[in-house]
Amino acid sequence: MTRFRLTVEYDGRPFMGWQRQAHGPSVQQAMEEAVFALFHEEVTFHAAGRTDAGVHALAMTVHVDIARPVSAHRLADGLNARLRPHPIAIIHAEEVDDDFHARFSCTRRRYRYRIANRRAPLALDAGRAWRVPVVLYADDMNKAAQVLVGQHDFMTFRSAHCQSDSPVKTLDRLTVRRLGEMIEIEADARSFLHHQVRSMVGCLMLVGRGKWTKGDLKAALDARDRAALGFNAPPDGLYFVGADYPGDR
Amino acid sequence: MTRFRLTVEYDGRPFMGWQRQAHGPSVQQAMEEAVFALFHEEVTFHAAGRTDAGVHALAMTVHVDIARPVSAHRLADGLNARLRPHPIAIIHAEEVDDDFHARFSCTRRRYRYRIANRRAPLALDAGRAWRVPVVLYADDMNKAAQVLVGQHDFMTFRSAHCQSDSPVKTLDRLTVRRLGEMIEIEADARSFLHHQVRSMVGCLMLVGRGKWTKGDLKAALDARDRAALGFNAPPDGLYFVGADYPGDR
Repeated sequence: MTRFRLTVEYDGRPFMGWQRQAHGPSVQQAMEEAVFALFHEEVTFHAAGRTDAGVHALAMTVHVDIARPVSAHRLADGLNARLRPHPIAIIHAEEVDDDFHARFSCTRRRYRYRIANRRAPLALDAGRAWRVPVVLYADDMNKAAQVLVGQHDFMTFRSAHCQSDSPVKTLDRLTVRRLGEMIEIEADARSFLHHQVRSMVGCLMLVGRGKWTKGDLKAALDARDRAALGFNAPPDGLYFVGADYPGDR
Repeated sequence: MTRFRLTVEYDGRPFMGWQRQAHGPSVQQAMEEAVFALFHEEVTFHAAGRTDAGVHALAMTVHVDIARPVSAHRLADGLNARLRPHPIAIIHAEEVDDDFHARFSCTRRRYRYRIANRRAPLALDAGRAWRVPVVLYADDMNKAAQVLVGQHDFMTFRSAHCQSDSPVKTLDRLTVRRLGEMIEIEADARSFLHHQVRSMVGCLMLVGRGKWTKGDLKAALDARDRAALGFNAPPDGLYFVGADYPGDR
């Protein structure tokens, strides 16, 4: 058995999410079927983050154990050939020690959320950004976002389906910046609650359009109550950007 | 009759190109059908550039004459509603004088070409960039590109189907730069020959991988012969970025 660490890019639109589901296609299932097609091995992939339906990944870290002797390079090429026509690509592969675990060894997850702040529909970014037609003030959003940084009980920003033991998380970074008509929100933490990024983005949108103040955002956090959530942003704009591990440069 | 100038974004993948075709869907046809659905008027759209099948637009300028009294704002919203589910969006609309012509008044066309310089397939940019798996040296490409800038007989870089009166064109700018794994090539000119950008990009790719020198590119230009063309890049990576007109800021 050799353990491989893979970096995976995917378009979340056709999938029910990363994780295997009984009722629809998943990235995990497509990858496990690709390994079976290659080596007739039934394997289980483990990922740094379990993205929801419609959420994308620029660089999701996963690991898998393979019995057949194969180089990382050939494994990546073989999987990429078998993954077609799924919008999933192995962009990096390497052998790792058996104690590497994509989920449990991960020390930091990084997400990006893209808001297309424009009136017109999205021809090139349909399903790949959240279109908000009213003017948003990114500077106000960025200032307000800082009340969420640090260790907090994020119960307000947690989905009812969240399986985390505790709602207390430490948010290391939350930045909002405008790039032309796009507003990019970046969030870093060791781990996130289910829907946390989308829930934070939804409330920041309310700040950006002037419906909420920084104080309202703080009050929503302090309420520790899902009912205090202002808005949950759709999956379209969310990207898993990367995962960090001890020893990574 | 009121003449409207519209700026249009589209994903070229589902279309045979901008121009109406007997044998398949086009952006022009979709837009003319949207006007008919709105106002029962049979109109003809004129565009700054007639992009080929699979070529995209970030901001194509077009014009159209509409008899029904309507504001630019309502025309854009109405067209966007009727264009669904086509990946076409009207991102700007304004009334213009009757002497404005999207094609004949245009003083400069701007194109961008995106090369994804990586081995892995494209999960997020499939059909939206040209994947070149061998390492390309963007600096070499940029230096060589400068031999094409200026007024030249671009016969080598012209498709057999080109309808231009003359193969002599003035290329105002051709730049190549690397942004991570992406190589972006930008080309500006008053007008281009059919396939000129894709043909220039194809030859620059040969320079980038070390198969051609700057001298080879110059020799291909000087040959004034389509047979001297090194490579024609696919449409996937090509974007019509914008058109300039007298009086634009």
